[in-house]
Amino acid sequence: MAAPINKQFKLAARPVGLPKRSDWSYEETPAPEPKDGELLVKVHYISLDPAMRGWMNAGRSYIRPVEIGEVMRAGTVGEVVASRHPEFPVGEFVSGTQGVQSYAICDGRNLMKIDPKAAPLPKYLNALGMPGMTAYFGLLDVGQPKAGETVLVSAASGAVGQAVGQIAKLKGCRAVGIAGGAEKCEYAVKELGYDACIDYKRGPIFPGLAQHCPDGVDVYFDNVGGDILDAVLTRIRMRARIVICGAISQYNATSAIQGPKNYMSLLVNRARMEGMVVFDWAPRYGEALQQMSQWMAQGKLKSREDVVEGLEHFPETLLKLFSGENFGKLVLKV
Amino acid sequence: MAAPINKQFKLAARPVGLPKRSDWSYEETPAPEPKDGELLVKVHYISLDPAMRGWMNAGRSYIRPVEIGEVMRAGTVGEVVASRHPEFPVGEFVSGTQGVQSYAICDGRNLMKIDPKAAPLPKYLNALGMPGMTAYFGLLDVGQPKAGETVLVSAASGAVGQAVGQIAKLKGCRAVGIAGGAEKCEYAVKELGYDACIDYKRGPIFPGLAQHCPDGVDVYFDNVGGDILDAVLTRIRMRARIVICGAISQYNATSAIQGPKNYMSLLVNRARMEGMVVFDWAPRYGEALQQMSQWMAQGKLKSREDVVEGLEHFPETLLKLFSGENFGKLVLKV
Repeated sequence: MAAPINKQFKLAARPVGLPKRSDWSYEETPAPEPKDGELLVKVHYISLDPAMRGWMNAGRSYIRPVEIGEVMRAGTVGEVVASRHPEFPVGEFVSGTQGVQSYAICDGRNLMKIDPKAAPLPKYLNALGMPGMTAYFGLLDVGQPKAGETVLVSAASGAVGQAVGQIAKLKGCRAVGIAGGAEKCEYAVKELGYDACIDYKRGPIFPGLAQHCPDGVDVYFDNVGGDILDAVLTRIRMRARIVICGAISQYNATSAIQGPKNYMSLLVNRARMEGMVVFDWAPRYGEALQQMSQWMAQGKLKSREDVVEGLEHFPETLLKLFSGENFGKLVLKV
Repeated sequence: MAAPINKQFKLAARPVGLPKRSDWSYEETPAPEPKDGELLVKVHYISLDPAMRGWMNAGRSYIRPVEIGEVMRAGTVGEVVASRHPEFPVGEFVSGTQGVQSYAICDGRNLMKIDPKAAPLPKYLNALGMPGMTAYFGLLDVGQPKAGETVLVSAASGAVGQAVGQIAKLKGCRAVGIAGGAEKCEYAVKELGYDACIDYKRGPIFPGLAQHCPDGVDVYFDNVGGDILDAVLTRIRMRARIVICGAISQYNATSAIQGPKNYMSLLVNRARMEGMVVFDWAPRYGEALQQMSQWMAQGKLKSREDVVEGLEHFPETLLKLFSGENFGKLVLKV
């Protein structure tokens, strides 16, 4: 039998601003065969995440950059289709970081078995994957919300925001979202259970903050940075916690990043701003997965995916994240 | 006997940028006599602090603003010269917030007895006063340095910075300062015991940070904000703590405050930035005073004051803080 064709996107150039088609090279090669101790994964779904933009830059960060000529890093779920690894027989489903390609050779490290009967595969890239882990530990460990407090979440209908808002409600907090457009805001309130959601595309968010967080914000879970972070800083309560999970508004900046000019509100309010990277909680993923799966089975935790079909559409699909065009966790179906 | 003359500076206008002479009104009136339960303090020394600039602005902050026509708020030490208050007899020395005036009526609240034999009076506005308390709790409670860590301090020879560096050393840390000019840097190293001090007036501080904090910064105690905060953010270590005590570089800004554009370093390094206001530790001042007095008596804690004589020089003396002209804690001798 002929080897299947492996379709791959490799990084061809370091982008300036938004990634362009020419920043990628697309290649088709025969999928390699696993050697002893290896297995071949057929990738079914690829996770598209804001963090990927950062991985394309050179220089020191929380993870090494993707090198030019390397397959673009991405979270994936797939199926073992050939194996010389005792722990991962053919037919097993796995999640890992197999990158933007249709087949990948692995040695089993950083690979997790998943159960496709317990939840649809894309959920393992969403609430039961990195976004869910990020929401769980970022909110509970870094944000430390107490019942009755107000938790504000930007990108509230995004992969991470969906879970943050629902976990906040499950913990007895008031949850207020910020999202772009009436449809996303309605989804946040009606489907996810946010108490309110502010549409930042309708204009400055100050009136919405005053209306929906009348006593101020205790925990702000920030995925966007920029003007929204600055506006929120004017409304934080005493001893507020700001979780810096991301700053998607700034990832494609070609000039200096916009710093939070209202940061002295941290002093006035004895508040703190703290950065997080979910990988630090890897030893505790199991605990979160168990809880999140249970909530999901009980119908208490919903998640929505925006599935785009066709690996070859990767470059333009990734851009949906930065225009806010995606609605829910963005996933590429191979 | 005729009542003594009370010289007072009142706020006449809310300043735009640096406070001007015309933002103040100077008045001379007979000092009032204490009623039952009151006492009259003759002010000996007035504390001039960066925070005073913030108190002159209208609007919500960590303390109510000084109103137009009100005596300017300031920390003071003085002597009871008339009393109808049982706890504060004539001859007692006290510290409090009697403002920029030579005499003040008090009801005893927020007044603390001090011992002029234990330390010279100006020390009670410096290491044994608010700056010392700020350094003690800001560094130890908010910064939480561990022995062997690197503590970086801006305005290292200023009232708060002096104490922060020395406490850091007493706790077994490496202490690196940032100050303006060779003389202040030399003082920080030779007198205060900093391991090194970077002169920000000689140019960008990046080379100095690389040289003197080769492994990065664990705790940054920030009194200045602006470009220096931004530079330091590029050198923080994993799980660094940034104590936001002040931002003197920005207090007179007439356009938008400069936000820390490198704040995403908090995410990369899982670091936090936390604001503090010393008043929150008032219930624990006694504990700090005891420790600081002991260190001072043992010769382990030095402090330097920059004493300017003459209450009438208040407006121009205050400006020394913002030009960095003062050397040590700035104090006005009445």
